[in-house]
Amino acid sequence: METAKIALLGFGTIGSGVAKLLIEQNARIAQRVGRPVTLAKIVDMDLTRDRGVAVPDGVLTSDIETVFNDPSISIVIELFGGTEPARTFVLRALASGKSVVTANKALLATHGPELFAAARKYGQTIAFEASVGGGIPIIAGIGQNLAANQILSIRGILNGTCNYILSAMEERDAAYADALADAQRLGYAEANPSMDVSASDAAQKLAILAQLAFGAKIDWQTIPRVGINTVDVADIRCARELGYTIRLIASARLYDNGLELLVAPTLLRRGMPLAHISEAFNAVHVIGDAVGPVLFYGKGAGQMPTASAVTADVIDTILGRARITFDALNLWPDGVTGAVPLRDPTLSSGRFYLHFQVEDQPGVLSQITSVLGARGISVASVLQREETAAGETDRTVPLIVMTHEANVAAVSDAIATINAFHCVRGECVSLRVLDA
Amino acid sequence: METAKIALLGFGTIGSGVAKLLIEQNARIAQRVGRPVTLAKIVDMDLTRDRGVAVPDGVLTSDIETVFNDPSISIVIELFGGTEPARTFVLRALASGKSVVTANKALLATHGPELFAAARKYGQTIAFEASVGGGIPIIAGIGQNLAANQILSIRGILNGTCNYILSAMEERDAAYADALADAQRLGYAEANPSMDVSASDAAQKLAILAQLAFGAKIDWQTIPRVGINTVDVADIRCARELGYTIRLIASARLYDNGLELLVAPTLLRRGMPLAHISEAFNAVHVIGDAVGPVLFYGKGAGQMPTASAVTADVIDTILGRARITFDALNLWPDGVTGAVPLRDPTLSSGRFYLHFQVEDQPGVLSQITSVLGARGISVASVLQREETAAGETDRTVPLIVMTHEANVAAVSDAIATINAFHCVRGECVSLRVLDA
Repeated sequence: METAKIALLGFGTIGSGVAKLLIEQNARIAQRVGRPVTLAKIVDMDLTRDRGVAVPDGVLTSDIETVFNDPSISIVIELFGGTEPARTFVLRALASGKSVVTANKALLATHGPELFAAARKYGQTIAFEASVGGGIPIIAGIGQNLAANQILSIRGILNGTCNYILSAMEERDAAYADALADAQRLGYAEANPSMDVSASDAAQKLAILAQLAFGAKIDWQTIPRVGINTVDVADIRCARELGYTIRLIASARLYDNGLELLVAPTLLRRGMPLAHISEAFNAVHVIGDAVGPVLFYGKGAGQMPTASAVTADVIDTILGRARITFDALNLWPDGVTGAVPLRDPTLSSGRFYLHFQVEDQPGVLSQITSVLGARGISVASVLQREETAAGETDRTVPLIVMTHEANVAAVSDAIATINAFHCVRGECVSLRVLDA
Repeated sequence: METAKIALLGFGTIGSGVAKLLIEQNARIAQRVGRPVTLAKIVDMDLTRDRGVAVPDGVLTSDIETVFNDPSISIVIELFGGTEPARTFVLRALASGKSVVTANKALLATHGPELFAAARKYGQTIAFEASVGGGIPIIAGIGQNLAANQILSIRGILNGTCNYILSAMEERDAAYADALADAQRLGYAEANPSMDVSASDAAQKLAILAQLAFGAKIDWQTIPRVGINTVDVADIRCARELGYTIRLIASARLYDNGLELLVAPTLLRRGMPLAHISEAFNAVHVIGDAVGPVLFYGKGAGQMPTASAVTADVIDTILGRARITFDALNLWPDGVTGAVPLRDPTLSSGRFYLHFQVEDQPGVLSQITSVLGARGISVASVLQREETAAGETDRTVPLIVMTHEANVAAVSDAIATINAFHCVRGECVSLRVLDA
């Protein structure tokens, strides 16, 4: 059988992991695809740093043209990350007759339609299991294994950095800034963590899942999202008292009148599977109309888990399974604006956790609840404590209101009204609540 | 495109679910495979019972020969269950040039080598996602998505009946017989539940996973197994006090000197993902050398979850993915006795929960612990209570010993010695313990 020749673009953390599998476990990979496999080129600017993997002479290069100019290379693994130059290089790889494997969610969420059109034009494929959920096979799960189903709902913990920070705040009663610093020291968060903590990274992944599961063609930047930098350890404590855990949840839910997408820190009732996902793990909870609920759980980031998913895609591409899947899924189809519309966001409803900081004086609770009641927002429970917040000079107390299911627009309007009250300090913290 | 014509053998619970998907969701399935799909024949002895699905005239028949004699039928779905006549009919389907989709774990665990050899001989495929874990895509997970990994360990809750019974015993403090009766009334357990509660069903599924993940070619009847009918509600209570939950765990673990297989009720430390799987759900926890731990969770049985997996296999077979997977995996290869040997069981070790019923008199604890100590079995904790077991006429008390990691043969020997003591009543209950 002909040798499958592969080029790797990017020799960073994930790239080194993929190189380890393709070089050190070469016999295993060759056995799984039934023919010889060679990592022919690794392209990176840094030609000297030791990545802990023995690369044969002549493989590592800073000259990407050697990849495009070598017709014997049939697969390009793109691990540069970000949108440029990754986009340009993926387009050139496809145009030079190479199939692509990528872990790049920013690239797909931003340029998916253009890249998939190019792949179809040049008769090549793009495989992207590692772009969402790291080592968890969620792309294959939804795209292949649950193919008999109409997917009804997806809820994911898709960002390991945020999950690590929220777990640390909960388990060690750590402030947000301290938990973030911890995460950075341990390598779970980047020096600039803004894509993660602002929920942009999770929104990009959700945009990919929404295309895969629902055919939704959306700009990830239009997905409503709330970062975890809004979450205070006091809210994590209050949530725990009420029987809930706070996690950053990316959700897509199909209604009769469209698809609802949201990424936001969310209170999850303890006992729900997603409530027990800790540290840097990811999990995706999917509901299909036939299969019911299914949960996929594993390491959502890190060198070898992500390399496992990338290499599975390489195996699929060599075997020809990726070809079949690429054609059958027909993702981001040319000229189609989106199989399902986004739902009018003002129709959205949910339960809310509202944290007001209020003056400790008579009548405040009644003032607030009357604003809620006037807008049809029913109160499920109230938590009021006697403590004074540290550093407050006047006497204010936290007032926590858990609502029953309520319309989102009504809740926003109520919060705006209450925030303007003289007896209320600062801005209300409002978080979504899920019970099942 | 040519219509894909399918025959369904068995119109029971699962068969009716598959018929619902192929008939009522025909447009969806056809769209996913890119060509028309027809359920051409359903074979069952009962031609009259209403299954809640509208079957076109001429489809339902009791004459299986109409399937074998129709060359336009390319896929046969076998849902008869059991080993015969399922084996004969699968062999005849393969010989008449039809690929097979089956949910039948007993058939594969017993006749896998013969059936896969026949499929290869006739150039057909066998797909069997639904045979393990119902709607959970564990066969694809291990066989395709984790293909870059050497699997190191599999631990599964593979029998929904047992999990329902153990959950009910724990949550409602119910006796085994009452929980079983409940499960039967709710349809989670069959009138004759012996295949389930004896752990034979889970052992058959483990044999399939062991072939898939490790190439182990074993008779499922040789897998060491302990049924849940050995578990008393008193043990569930004691386990809970110690911070553990009891679940029936099917495990396969790769050691340097071979593969260790076991199905047994096991204490799981709370916080482990498998410890929180309740009711009739299944879950499989897999460790790969690259991906690390991955968990798959969902409904392990039931009409539509199982039909979802069967139909995914039908889609894969029509698309040609099943062909690639079947060839690449080369399961139960001809003339190979097994890629990995079973480990010498006397080398096995683990932590144990030991429940002795002892006379309430001085010196008993020291007698027992000295037997353990003499065999190198270290005691981690002891739980002794003052209560008298109901119905006992003399004064005996339960004595619970949790050991540290210990050799299995040494523990068996110690138990035999202690059981013979005059101060010990009945037989020691011994259960495995997992902490992570």
